[in-house]
Amino acid sequence: MKEALLEAVTAIAAAMATRSERGRVADYIPELARVDPDHFGIAVVDADGDVAVAGDADAPFSIQSVSKVFALTLALGKIGDGLWRRVGREPSGNAFNSITQLEYEKGIPRNPFINAGALVVTDAILSGHTPKVALGEILRFLHFVADDETIFIDDKVAKSEQDTGFRNAALANYLRAFENLRNPVEMVLGVYFHHCAIAMSCRQLAMAGRYLAFGGRHPTAGGRVVSSERAKRINALMLTCGHYDGSGDFAFRVGIPAKSGVGGGILGVVPGKASIAVWSPGLDGQGNSLLGSEALEILSRRMGWSIFGD
Amino acid sequence: MKEALLEAVTAIAAAMATRSERGRVADYIPELARVDPDHFGIAVVDADGDVAVAGDADAPFSIQSVSKVFALTLALGKIGDGLWRRVGREPSGNAFNSITQLEYEKGIPRNPFINAGALVVTDAILSGHTPKVALGEILRFLHFVADDETIFIDDKVAKSEQDTGFRNAALANYLRAFENLRNPVEMVLGVYFHHCAIAMSCRQLAMAGRYLAFGGRHPTAGGRVVSSERAKRINALMLTCGHYDGSGDFAFRVGIPAKSGVGGGILGVVPGKASIAVWSPGLDGQGNSLLGSEALEILSRRMGWSIFGD
Amino acid sequence: MKEALLEAVTAIAAAMATRSERGRVADYIPELARVDPDHFGIAVVDADGDVAVAGDADAPFSIQSVSKVFALTLALGKIGDGLWRRVGREPSGNAFNSITQLEYEKGIPRNPFINAGALVVTDAILSGHTPKVALGEILRFLHFVADDETIFIDDKVAKSEQDTGFRNAALANYLRAFENLRNPVEMVLGVYFHHCAIAMSCRQLAMAGRYLAFGGRHPTAGGRVVSSERAKRINALMLTCGHYDGSGDFAFRVGIPAKSGVGGGILGVVPGKASIAVWSPGLDGQGNSLLGSEALEILSRRMGWSIFGD
Amino acid sequence: MKEALLEAVTAIAAAMATRSERGRVADYIPELARVDPDHFGIAVVDADGDVAVAGDADAPFSIQSVSKVFALTLALGKIGDGLWRRVGREPSGNAFNSITQLEYEKGIPRNPFINAGALVVTDAILSGHTPKVALGEILRFLHFVADDETIFIDDKVAKSEQDTGFRNAALANYLRAFENLRNPVEMVLGVYFHHCAIAMSCRQLAMAGRYLAFGGRHPTAGGRVVSSERAKRINALMLTCGHYDGSGDFAFRVGIPAKSGVGGGILGVVPGKASIAVWSPGLDGQGNSLLGSEALEILSRRMGWSIFGD
Repeated sequence: MKEALLEAVTAIAAAMATRSERGRVADYIPELARVDPDHFGIAVVDADGDVAVAGDADAPFSIQSVSKVFALTLALGKIGDGLWRRVGREPSGNAFNSITQLEYEKGIPRNPFINAGALVVTDAILSGHTPKVALGEILRFLHFVADDETIFIDDKVAKSEQDTGFRNAALANYLRAFENLRNPVEMVLGVYFHHCAIAMSCRQLAMAGRYLAFGGRHPTAGGRVVSSERAKRINALMLTCGHYDGSGDFAFRVGIPAKSGVGGGILGVVPGKASIAVWSPGLDGQGNSLLGSEALEILSRRMGWSIFGD
Repeated sequence: MKEALLEAVTAIAAAMATRSERGRVADYIPELARVDPDHFGIAVVDADGDVAVAGDADAPFSIQSVSKVFALTLALGKIGDGLWRRVGREPSGNAFNSITQLEYEKGIPRNPFINAGALVVTDAILSGHTPKVALGEILRFLHFVADDETIFIDDKVAKSEQDTGFRNAALANYLRAFENLRNPVEMVLGVYFHHCAIAMSCRQLAMAGRYLAFGGRHPTAGGRVVSSERAKRINALMLTCGHYDGSGDFAFRVGIPAKSGVGGGILGVVPGKASIAVWSPGLDGQGNSLLGSEALEILSRRMGWSIFGD
Repeated sequence: MKEALLEAVTAIAAAMATRSERGRVADYIPELARVDPDHFGIAVVDADGDVAVAGDADAPFSIQSVSKVFALTLALGKIGDGLWRRVGREPSGNAFNSITQLEYEKGIPRNPFINAGALVVTDAILSGHTPKVALGEILRFLHFVADDETIFIDDKVAKSEQDTGFRNAALANYLRAFENLRNPVEMVLGVYFHHCAIAMSCRQLAMAGRYLAFGGRHPTAGGRVVSSERAKRINALMLTCGHYDGSGDFAFRVGIPAKSGVGGGILGVVPGKASIAVWSPGLDGQGNSLLGSEALEILSRRMGWSIFGD
Repeated sequence: MKEALLEAVTAIAAAMATRSERGRVADYIPELARVDPDHFGIAVVDADGDVAVAGDADAPFSIQSVSKVFALTLALGKIGDGLWRRVGREPSGNAFNSITQLEYEKGIPRNPFINAGALVVTDAILSGHTPKVALGEILRFLHFVADDETIFIDDKVAKSEQDTGFRNAALANYLRAFENLRNPVEMVLGVYFHHCAIAMSCRQLAMAGRYLAFGGRHPTAGGRVVSSERAKRINALMLTCGHYDGSGDFAFRVGIPAKSGVGGGILGVVPGKASIAVWSPGLDGQGNSLLGSEALEILSRRMGWSIFGD
């Protein structure tokens, strides 16, 4: 199987390199708009801890919303299932930055992976800390789960988003109006923009996702990052809500729990088998990486990794 | 494992028998409102074809929306992936009978498991046939996949729904206004109400679901009901959309692709491992069987059957 | 002033005859789609009962939604202010045939001039009668208020609408689901499509509107059609809701209570001064007569007839 | 008539003093929540400039949204009809602080009297000035139209709103995301909260409204405040949009263009006849003064002042 995986990963990177239709690089964050759309990277960590990579697997990119998975893990660690009184677990049926749903559901975001939900999650992480402490905690968590202390926050991206993130500021103020943020709006937004601006390579991201693929355990440090129950539940949320309003279609085509970000990265989790990261900056109409999704679809089929049958 | 399964099923039925909080029996279809809320049945077919049952596993109940899974299978067999131009694959973020989504998305239902989507699916099955022929086809399909020719349509339930189904009539007329129904509204509604009124026992329903659990194959007749690819995709839709606006929560708690009906039945599919049917008539706030969901949650945990990890 | 009025009316008809941009004739009712867009007619009845006309003032056209004003008058006469428990008095902020509002407001239409509201009004008129009797009553009312027994229902238009009126059928079924229709859906729709298919000329329509312009009184028969209080209230509804989602703009530009129909007719009411009818079949983006609105804007300015100041 | 008016005003104040059901004082702005609900004031200025007052007609109250009328007048004076490219003229069919409409209509508020629209209007006034200059301009305008230099901004109310105005901050950020605010969000909000915090008595407010009642002219200074055309148009907007989602009902019952504020004040305009101000702090379910509305209804009926007929 290891050979099959290496062959698959290499073939996929080769195929993706030939694609002319590569989607559109996110342009609403000026700093992201500059990224070259020709990048493609893929990395897969299997149950033995072996890593198969191809393409730009070691180039760092802005993980953006993929960070919501790690933020959720941390927030659950801090305040436990009480979080679910402040945020739901249902797909949204709306664009990722929609404010309409918040109005109808009186300030309770539908799930932790839409922006409003991630702001509440960020608020839960902040509680009782300064932004600096909260960001330090998030970064240390990533260093730990990825076994890599070089992961960093790209301050230019964070600044770029802070200058233009009026929709997120609207969401945060709206949540505060419903008293579903407890820390000052500016502080929550600051931490949110910074953890979305974390830069990671495919290799680092695939390493970081191991605890979700392998029952909550840390493969090298030993011990648990989260309980196996919690790992399953986070995977379930990734499957139903991980690709915004394209989550159903992604589950239909790919069949792997995964979380995408507008930087073009996707973290995929095959329970018991693999943690996967892909990166291609061009996005489809729902804001998910066009070639990244296709790469995962091919990989899932070649390896028989769909959780819905083989 | 067989013993573990039998023990699990028996223990679950025993536990459910003691519950006083059993949800509310659907009352918007008069004929369903009469069903005794004390019923509980469960049946599981494993990969060897062995069946474990407990409780009222042989009592027929109205499968209601569970029939949408079989209708979808038939419609895809007839018109193939062209169906996806007329209906989406995304969770709805709305109640199962919501008409608002149809207005915003111009007559394209979000998925085949909300009522509007199932009406389009029914229209696809009808094409070029009389209602009688279409219903005969649906029933023959169920006889085939369940290996059981005694499955029947409960005409009293169909009639009861036809007399009071104004919301469904609104949806059908609305779809027709967008030219997303091709057959006369009355005809589509007639077939729809009748296939929702199919009566099956847990044992029959678990048998009928085998092709989805086991890669599209018919375990006893041999050969394929659908391709393994299509089985996976239907399972994915069941996971993301099978419990209306409670689908995310069901995936989170249970982790098994499943479709519920307001008759209190749920069909669950564990790829490669089992086809499951449970029945308890009382519903929760989202219209899903209260004890049926709980029974599946316990079963999934005891057997390690979540598709999101073990 | 009589001369000023005659001059105004003649000048307006002459100006409208030269317009090349005439809007789009409604095409969703096949029978209406055939009407020649070059028509333009205008008729004004003043407080002395004198009539000024120009253009095609004596050609009959389909009054369509203008009939909702007369239907409302009749329904209020039958069931009084109890009607307001079943229909609101607020502008809708939505397209005239929107079903979304009905879902959010649980089956209570926002006002009697959107289609859903007019269906409830029609249901109130029907109560305890056959459709034939109800339609006879509506027609007799028009004969009386217009002093003209030649006004008739165009059955071809009614038939054309009945064959294609799926959105209205959706609305009616939806209202019935909320028990806000008491008569069978088919019957309500039949009466609705027929009273919308009443054919009148500008002259007849202006005559019919006199009771609203002149304090509820019947200028020639003597006595009251409605109380002055009720006339004022119907005028208020025409101003706030008479042009669908273009009502605010019409009030802003024209400043006269008025009700439009997709046949291209508009009835305008200047309290104490005049009853006006204009007709030009081409519609603007909101479904209101393009040249009809402009004609009323010019007339209002020339005569100083805005109710918002002179 | 002068005596009739004085009698009416006195009788109304006497009747209102006996009411036990007085509505609920706005509590979302802490500073407003302290106002005594027993206040009632009324002032009417007629075409001769005579003033009839009763009750607490000289007690200052927070005019809140009534200030939107004056802000609109100023913004139209500055940028003219170009304003209508940035804000609509239609009733909203939604609560005054709804953000949903903004999402569906891509950042164009439905009218200048809902909060989002008033923020755009405030942005137009600000253009090229500091907040201090803009507020000075607004205040000078009020001193001029009311002939009264004692009108002031209540800084405590402004501060109180600034501390709790998260919904308005959400709206402003959202508008900015659509580039429909050109000045910094904080600056627009600052000016907005301060002009809503202007304190005026009924007498001052009725004086300030004279230019709208009397064709745009300044009765004492001579000359025009606005053209008669613009006065009519502002009156039309007050009628269709002046009472949030209760505008239709207010037009139906009272028949006078009017603008309400959550401080409990209402400015009413009877074209050619009178400028009216009433104040009673308790609000109805739509956020409009309960007794203020009733007072205007009685006054309109007694004086025959409805614009929809007499």
